[in-house]
Amino acid sequence: MKNSNLLIAHGGGPTAVINSSLQGVIEEALKHPEIDKIIGARFGIEGLLDEKFIDLSSQSPDIIEGLSHTPASVLGSCRKKLKDEDFSKVIDIFKKNNIRYFFYNGGNDSMDTCNKISKFVLDSGYDLAVIGIPKTIDNDLVNTDHCPGYGSAARYVAISMMELASDIESLPIHVCVTELMGRNVGWLTAAASLAVRDNKGPHLIYLPERPLIMDKFLNDVKEAYDLYGGVLVVVSEGLKDEKGQYISDCGFIDDFGHKIPGGVSQYLSNEIIRNLGINSRSEKPGLLGRCSMMHQSQVDKTEAKAVGRFAVKTALEGNSGYMVALKRVSNEPYECEIGFQDLEKVANFEKSFPTEWIKPEGNGINSDFIDYCLPLTGGKFPEFIRLKEIYI
Amino acid sequence: MKNSNLLIAHGGGPTAVINSSLQGVIEEALKHPEIDKIIGARFGIEGLLDEKFIDLSSQSPDIIEGLSHTPASVLGSCRKKLKDEDFSKVIDIFKKNNIRYFFYNGGNDSMDTCNKISKFVLDSGYDLAVIGIPKTIDNDLVNTDHCPGYGSAARYVAISMMELASDIESLPIHVCVTELMGRNVGWLTAAASLAVRDNKGPHLIYLPERPLIMDKFLNDVKEAYDLYGGVLVVVSEGLKDEKGQYISDCGFIDDFGHKIPGGVSQYLSNEIIRNLGINSRSEKPGLLGRCSMMHQSQVDKTEAKAVGRFAVKTALEGNSGYMVALKRVSNEPYECEIGFQDLEKVANFEKSFPTEWIKPEGNGINSDFIDYCLPLTGGKFPEFIRLKEIYI
Repeated sequence: MKNSNLLIAHGGGPTAVINSSLQGVIEEALKHPEIDKIIGARFGIEGLLDEKFIDLSSQSPDIIEGLSHTPASVLGSCRKKLKDEDFSKVIDIFKKNNIRYFFYNGGNDSMDTCNKISKFVLDSGYDLAVIGIPKTIDNDLVNTDHCPGYGSAARYVAISMMELASDIESLPIHVCVTELMGRNVGWLTAAASLAVRDNKGPHLIYLPERPLIMDKFLNDVKEAYDLYGGVLVVVSEGLKDEKGQYISDCGFIDDFGHKIPGGVSQYLSNEIIRNLGINSRSEKPGLLGRCSMMHQSQVDKTEAKAVGRFAVKTALEGNSGYMVALKRVSNEPYECEIGFQDLEKVANFEKSFPTEWIKPEGNGINSDFIDYCLPLTGGKFPEFIRLKEIYI
Repeated sequence: MKNSNLLIAHGGGPTAVINSSLQGVIEEALKHPEIDKIIGARFGIEGLLDEKFIDLSSQSPDIIEGLSHTPASVLGSCRKKLKDEDFSKVIDIFKKNNIRYFFYNGGNDSMDTCNKISKFVLDSGYDLAVIGIPKTIDNDLVNTDHCPGYGSAARYVAISMMELASDIESLPIHVCVTELMGRNVGWLTAAASLAVRDNKGPHLIYLPERPLIMDKFLNDVKEAYDLYGGVLVVVSEGLKDEKGQYISDCGFIDDFGHKIPGGVSQYLSNEIIRNLGINSRSEKPGLLGRCSMMHQSQVDKTEAKAVGRFAVKTALEGNSGYMVALKRVSNEPYECEIGFQDLEKVANFEKSFPTEWIKPEGNGINSDFIDYCLPLTGGKFPEFIRLKEIYI
């Protein structure tokens, strides 16, 4: 369709490569004369509803080039859930602006929104290609090998935990409980296992796929403390107790009705001090782990861009109602193919961390996961030296 | 004195460049045939008392070269305070091992230990050069322009807060309270002001040099929230109330009798939710900020190594009872001279952040500080793009 416009919006939390996907979309769209204007909605579907539209076609090459090394979302994002009455308004806005290609770049909640828009558009008879572009540091979208954004966040976790483990080993005066993001799934926290070298730690890793049993946890910590002195414990923000309640949450609920987890490391650290009488402190890098450009994975960046390009190509081929997905075809050398999946089969599902990759004791990760995760991080971690232990 | 040995030990928390100072000491000492063995004590003065001595003279060139890009302390460190009865034991160990040069690389508490050893040795008549090598991310040693380790930690803060501010701006759904290290002084937290670009934040910065008045704090947050939506607040772990009590502490006390601060960001975040009804979350990168090699400042690394070299040279010239110190002779171009200060004038003093560099409102930092701090971080921060706001 000639002189039609393309709209892209971001949903949910940003990643270190969401702007790379935007770069892919823009670069691909600029090649196709059938696309007139490339439009970005400011702050996700909020900007869509308010028609806060930015012209991406007339950004300078420097700006487009700079997208891949700029953190967060340059368009802005939101966590808004569309109400039933919003959908007809959305269609009107698409029509008014002659938008014929719509891309929503986000995670689970965004794919749900994307799917609903896709179905509503289909029912309305308006000719619009709707494509979801995956993105989440949580890595919890189903029917894709992994999600763009995860590899960079996992690289951040791996390198940061290598460094932190060195710190704890060099001044072994306390237990350090570190909390990592990932909502209800342990994918990101599991990346801490990539940091393990010799006896350095992380010594204990807990994912939300297993309930945290406090007595067992304290026993694990005590044993590791007796063995190593300094102990690095890594926990997921989404850890739950045996009743399925968050060990700790932020005290507020998002637009999708989800409680926002957070604060578990400090809670557990306090329990260690109180019950074991061992010095303990907590760390919570939190959002820092999803916006660190220093830890951007080159593999992740390349894929994020390719996924953006693919979205444009598949929409131009007349496809709609799909999410772009990755399929691993080889692990050595690592290679992924890009394809797509029905949005219907993606929206509102959550991919948990495979329990067979969790050690039977529930406090560590198996090496199968490392084979899965390492290539996504871009590999090549920094090498730290150790002194030769020649004693006098 | 021929065939005499050199001993070096680390005290207190590691930095991103403490191993660079060690590299400087080893490289310089290797040049001087009057130094026989270069010995490292494992885990600070604990290793000294236990004679856990590692031979640094016979480490391979690869290992010595790798020191400058290895985090934490390769020797190991401690927070032990020497008891009165320990000093004569220390002298005996020096004598037994023919140690004639002793370097203690640490912060305030370590300089106190170093000073006491220096005086005890002088009284005993044993011929030993005792030199303190400064190191602390807190930057709170007096009589030196700054402390090795601070520049790298400040660089971590500046870049991380730039990235975090981008994240908060791109998804402006909450207040984010971030806690940074620095004990009772605001030097490290103040480095967050290097991240401020346009209206991006950090919007509010609080140092421990001013008591935190809760009503005023909540009012500041409310005003910033009404203005920006997403607000980045940066606070020092050592924030105190009007009565001089930590807003929050870790619940344990170190060997020097100091309460360990920590947890203030989560406390303040909870207060924001409870009193203002605004969504808020807290981050606490904590120890990650002192061991990040990705954020190592080249200026800091070079100085740390030079300070190590200087310590050896000054000890060989017959000096003792001093701490190596930095004196800024020019800011543009940045240049520091290396000299030394009496340990007596350094031990047990704490350099607070100058109150005239804090904005009158108590919630931000003046640009004079930026002139002071920027050169130490090595400058050249990453450039992030912004879209041209061409609306359709």
